[in-house]
Amino acid sequence: MKLFEPVHINAMRLENRIVLPAMVTRLSGEDGLVNQDIIDRYVRLAKGEPGLIVIEAMAIHGAKSGQLLRLSEDRFIDGHRELLRRMRAAGPSKVVPQIIHFLKLSKSGWRQKPMDLGREEIRLIVRQYGEAAGRARRTGYDGVELHMAHAYTVSSFLSRRNLREDEYGGSLENRMRLMSEILIEVRRVVGADFPMGVRFDGEECITDGYGLDDSAEMALRMAKLGADWVSISAGGKFEDAVHKPGQAIYPYTGYSGDRCMPPRGYQDGYNAYLGTGIKAHLNRHGHSTPVITTGKIRTAEMAERLLATGQADLIGMARTLLADPDWPKKVRAGREDRVVRCISINVCKALDENFKKVRCYLWPRGSLHAPESADVTAPAWPESGSALRVFEEPKGHVRLSWSAARDPEGLYGYWVERSADGGPWEIVSAVRADMHTTFQDSTAVAGVAYRYRVRAYDLAGNKSPASNVVETALALPVLSERA
Amino acid sequence: MKLFEPVHINAMRLENRIVLPAMVTRLSGEDGLVNQDIIDRYVRLAKGEPGLIVIEAMAIHGAKSGQLLRLSEDRFIDGHRELLRRMRAAGPSKVVPQIIHFLKLSKSGWRQKPMDLGREEIRLIVRQYGEAAGRARRTGYDGVELHMAHAYTVSSFLSRRNLREDEYGGSLENRMRLMSEILIEVRRVVGADFPMGVRFDGEECITDGYGLDDSAEMALRMAKLGADWVSISAGGKFEDAVHKPGQAIYPYTGYSGDRCMPPRGYQDGYNAYLGTGIKAHLNRHGHSTPVITTGKIRTAEMAERLLATGQADLIGMARTLLADPDWPKKVRAGREDRVVRCISINVCKALDENFKKVRCYLWPRGSLHAPESADVTAPAWPESGSALRVFEEPKGHVRLSWSAARDPEGLYGYWVERSADGGPWEIVSAVRADMHTTFQDSTAVAGVAYRYRVRAYDLAGNKSPASNVVETALALPVLSERA
Repeated sequence: MKLFEPVHINAMRLENRIVLPAMVTRLSGEDGLVNQDIIDRYVRLAKGEPGLIVIEAMAIHGAKSGQLLRLSEDRFIDGHRELLRRMRAAGPSKVVPQIIHFLKLSKSGWRQKPMDLGREEIRLIVRQYGEAAGRARRTGYDGVELHMAHAYTVSSFLSRRNLREDEYGGSLENRMRLMSEILIEVRRVVGADFPMGVRFDGEECITDGYGLDDSAEMALRMAKLGADWVSISAGGKFEDAVHKPGQAIYPYTGYSGDRCMPPRGYQDGYNAYLGTGIKAHLNRHGHSTPVITTGKIRTAEMAERLLATGQADLIGMARTLLADPDWPKKVRAGREDRVVRCISINVCKALDENFKKVRCYLWPRGSLHAPESADVTAPAWPESGSALRVFEEPKGHVRLSWSAARDPEGLYGYWVERSADGGPWEIVSAVRADMHTTFQDSTAVAGVAYRYRVRAYDLAGNKSPASNVVETALALPVLSERA
Repeated sequence: MKLFEPVHINAMRLENRIVLPAMVTRLSGEDGLVNQDIIDRYVRLAKGEPGLIVIEAMAIHGAKSGQLLRLSEDRFIDGHRELLRRMRAAGPSKVVPQIIHFLKLSKSGWRQKPMDLGREEIRLIVRQYGEAAGRARRTGYDGVELHMAHAYTVSSFLSRRNLREDEYGGSLENRMRLMSEILIEVRRVVGADFPMGVRFDGEECITDGYGLDDSAEMALRMAKLGADWVSISAGGKFEDAVHKPGQAIYPYTGYSGDRCMPPRGYQDGYNAYLGTGIKAHLNRHGHSTPVITTGKIRTAEMAERLLATGQADLIGMARTLLADPDWPKKVRAGREDRVVRCISINVCKALDENFKKVRCYLWPRGSLHAPESADVTAPAWPESGSALRVFEEPKGHVRLSWSAARDPEGLYGYWVERSADGGPWEIVSAVRADMHTTFQDSTAVAGVAYRYRVRAYDLAGNKSPASNVVETALALPVLSERA
């Protein structure tokens, strides 16, 4: 598989094409220091052996924030060295920090915008990016990723909603000026051989926001100024976010937030067209800068197809690797069937939104990290069988219930699988074993013949045999009385 | 070309695969009657010979509205007969009306929602759809299209934001109940042989809205209940619309409005993936109901590719045919170079938003309809030449100016063409000849070598030779001082 072919990016050799993009954990304190929770989280992720791990965004400046790592002063370096040392011991992943600048937010809903900044403040941001990147190099990180996506400073300058009238706004060229100055400065500080990438939005997904026409030019500019990769996100903007009274506005609450982390109901690989378009534009202009494509990529089949068709160079998976850090190892071993697959219900996002430690809903109750287990015994149904039963509810739902399975080590969950009109079995949802032996399917529709079955899985990914199969077929509606 | 292969849809034979989707004109009065402006507009469109013309949404009920056609009582039928008679004399297009139900809106910003409706009101809506469809048949129309898209009643029931807790909300099945009842009732009224299609959203493009997973099931339900086509739109919702004080809320002012009529900056064919996904789902379940794909489709190459790859059965073009109703005839004759191409600046949408008569910005000043001309003489540059000049402006724009061309019949406009880094010439914009001989390009970026040229065109689409070519290449930014 192309997914497991090594790739060189400047001085880095990645063992495979799987990237963990930066993902907020809220595991650090407000002091911005690396702590044990942070180390444990990233060591666990490193054990899964993705090619590249991008450590969550860390501030380049001292502005007040919630739980957020920092690289804004030299005193933060020691903690990062320890984190890196532990991660290197856990696996071969290359590790880079993502560095971020953000503008001021008030709980009143006010937020600072590009047009509020003076020239001196802009120059300071450029310098701070350079300094933080220099610290990344001195720490021993393999490279650095510049955060230019979502609701944050550089993205707000890149935005079509940037209302500045001087040379930092108006035309596309001027909107790109801050981004360009930062790239030049960072490269000047870190030197030619230090891998430097950029994460930015392929599309803003807001009214009057920018789309692929602009983002393709932005990527080209990044390539020309020496970016070693571009990692494509989408949305995550303040402009359509919902302000809750008394709270700092959270930029993933509008449609642009949905597009940043596509929830259930949206197709897998929703944002892949952005990487495709950007890569084509780069290539047309003679650049082969690697493109990292992200956005609800769940399966090896989709990842491989994006690589094989030249639509992407690397595949970013955030929630997918949060749900199961061992995705890379399991897929490489031909055991994708053991992957604990993200079900996109975005509990992780809700935790972030509420300033709580980010974990995956599917993990066992109380765990702060994905489980690990070397167990080889699969769960089993009770002697009386799986007893899967189906109920059609008057509200248009299909309800399933089954007997609890058993596992010597402890159950982890159940996969609910569905086949529609004789089609292939597909995972509809995971159900946590510590919570339910029932499931309500509110996406089943009348006139389609469904079959359901359930499998229990344990912490190591061992699966029980399939339950008995149940069938349901709701009759198509008729007019209950002559209208 | 597949685009010009005839296709049978129930009792209709369409001469080609080009569809004019329903498009608000605001040409009717508040009396809801067909008037001369309406007749002139649709006769002009019919002269271009698209396979199918869908007449703009007309009300099935008597609720107050702005300028809107109606089919809510028999007294409206005569006007539609006259419209149809005139259109049939103008060309071979098949003609169907789109019929709509909408909920109440107040200028205070209040709007009626699905949960405000009682059972009797729902039953009335179903009956009114049936009655209006019956009138469409009695008028002599070739079929009828049911409006189930955007911010209107049926779409609001289909929405994931439908909060009803009875059998008309909650599950996907229940959200589809009103839609299903209407399809059953309309088919009962019009009979099996009368073409009946549906226009609906492939994706809502709002927070917590539905995506392709749901819309694919909706299309399948429509197919099962005898829909003869599904026409796929996107967005256009109230949920993210901007309320201007003192005005009824206009549902195309948010991001979902951008997605409904993608403006500049978004790639051509933005929404085509929705038709692709829906068609694949229909086919998987054994249905071959034709899918009409829409959304910024501008070129014959893209239209043909969507058909040839089986991603669409018919191609809908609204703004494209507004800008130049003769697109089908010109393309069929191998003269796509004569097409007056929509430049997606959405002046048409702004006119609709402000309750003004909808026209294309590119049309000659004062015209209420696209021009017609049999002129064969191309515009010419003055003897002194085209004198195209380029200026690089400090604000990051590139500015062009040129000499006015001349045409015996009267000039229509100029095409500004650009080639980037030696790539193909592409149309950047049209400039109206009655307004400017200048153009400001705010999408040109530094570090790319651009060439520009200009051509004048007249009302018949005749083009002048290309102007002289000018070149520009802005230097990449450097840090003006050590940051």
